[in-house]
Amino acid sequence: VTTLSNSRLNRSLVDGEPDLGLPITDRGLNYGDGLFETLLVRGGRPCQWPRHRRRLELGGRRLGLVLPPAELLAEEASLLTRGIADGVLKILITRGDGGRGYRPMPGAAPRRVLTLHPVPDYPAGWYREGVALRRCATPATHNPALAGIKHLNRLDSVLARAEWDDPAIAEGLMSGPDGALIGGTMTNLFLWDGSRLSTPAVDCCGIAGTVRELALEIASDLGISCAQERVSPTDLARARGLFLTNSVAGVWPVRQLEDHRYDVAQLPLDFIAGLHRAACTPEGTWP
Amino acid sequence: VTTLSNSRLNRSLVDGEPDLGLPITDRGLNYGDGLFETLLVRGGRPCQWPRHRRRLELGGRRLGLVLPPAELLAEEASLLTRGIADGVLKILITRGDGGRGYRPMPGAAPRRVLTLHPVPDYPAGWYREGVALRRCATPATHNPALAGIKHLNRLDSVLARAEWDDPAIAEGLMSGPDGALIGGTMTNLFLWDGSRLSTPAVDCCGIAGTVRELALEIASDLGISCAQERVSPTDLARARGLFLTNSVAGVWPVRQLEDHRYDVAQLPLDFIAGLHRAACTPEGTWP
Repeated sequence: VTTLSNSRLNRSLVDGEPDLGLPITDRGLNYGDGLFETLLVRGGRPCQWPRHRRRLELGGRRLGLVLPPAELLAEEASLLTRGIADGVLKILITRGDGGRGYRPMPGAAPRRVLTLHPVPDYPAGWYREGVALRRCATPATHNPALAGIKHLNRLDSVLARAEWDDPAIAEGLMSGPDGALIGGTMTNLFLWDGSRLSTPAVDCCGIAGTVRELALEIASDLGISCAQERVSPTDLARARGLFLTNSVAGVWPVRQLEDHRYDVAQLPLDFIAGLHRAACTPEGTWP
Repeated sequence: VTTLSNSRLNRSLVDGEPDLGLPITDRGLNYGDGLFETLLVRGGRPCQWPRHRRRLELGGRRLGLVLPPAELLAEEASLLTRGIADGVLKILITRGDGGRGYRPMPGAAPRRVLTLHPVPDYPAGWYREGVALRRCATPATHNPALAGIKHLNRLDSVLARAEWDDPAIAEGLMSGPDGALIGGTMTNLFLWDGSRLSTPAVDCCGIAGTVRELALEIASDLGISCAQERVSPTDLARARGLFLTNSVAGVWPVRQLEDHRYDVAQLPLDFIAGLHRAACTPEGTWP
């Protein structure tokens, strides 16, 4: 059992074969016509695989993209992660070939690209004392037909993430074109008012994260109200506390947003610890 | 001098080398992090190359992507089209490698993919009698930071184009999330009221097409007013006539939109013929 080095991409499978390339006719390249999932592998076992698989299936239905069987993806994931303790598995599915003309070719075989990456080494203090955030100027893309799913059209997050390079800033918050908060460039946002949670709705912009979904379920199980709603900058300023979720990072409490400081001790820390544990604990095996 | 067969992709250059693939770490694949141009080659010479080059440069500035020198692209285009009379040249530029993490790596070399395709064989009647259109349900993506440029996040057009397969329907019109008309899945839209032109603004959704730009310039030269503005479904129904523009197709008059018929004879046909000619006549040579 080994740990991946941080220096390079270590392993990949393209349509089941060890490969580092794909054809320039691929629609993923030409139009961003595809989906992806990024999930944590701990002790050689997947975290939240059924949740990632379900979101992939939802994306496939929304894009009209016939996915490879989940069993095949699991089998290949198992092959790729063999002998690896901890890593980040990225599963990327494109609509296959057809690089000229937006129209998808009926019957084109989807292409699957599985890659294994090192787990990012986030500072321990980000989990204990919380993270510092900034506000991004780049708007989140608004499209009800594309919101929620994890498709390959991610230029809004790319441009937002390019706005800063200070390593002390963990994440940037993005708003939709109407000014409503959506989430971070790679995280979902939660607000705590002292008794209830809320999180931006992702029906027009943003991605329905797997840990966001897990948070909604755990909150429901515990009888904690968590609204999915429009969140304004005023709501942010009034919140008792904030936290962010991501399938690889888990949960980050927020200690600062621009000049506004939050007291992390005011957050529901038991809930956050339980959510982080649930998100980052492996369950079951691949197939 | 030969004509490209319709059966397959004939020629390509990746970073200047004859190649049919690119690395799975490419950011174009992973995030749609890049730009493209599709231009007509006639008699071995480019149509509107300076206009395509300028749009690419505008896109590069908007994405913070340092483009390869225009002279290099022209040189490779010249190499790729050598001995070819007519074709469609696609120039695709990505931000290069970096497939994990939205943040662009400073100093990463952009990747260039040039491919040559056959000219689509559109029916002659589409130019003479006009085309039939439908309305698409898929909304055009709204993002002021990404509108206008020809980036690789094109899922809205893909899903809109997947809505129909009747070959008698030439194009589908798309609206923004607010219901305002934006254009076709691969064309810009113009309305004629009998004395003035108008075309949807592309500052929030859509692409600023090269033939659209040419139309605005020719109209201005001729003293014909052409507003770039919000176009509502009512404006469409009230228009005397419509036409569509595209860098490969040139100009299509519209004879029908869903059940609404337009009299193509009411359009400014001299303007349209002149615009089509200007769009599809080669000028100069590559470098």
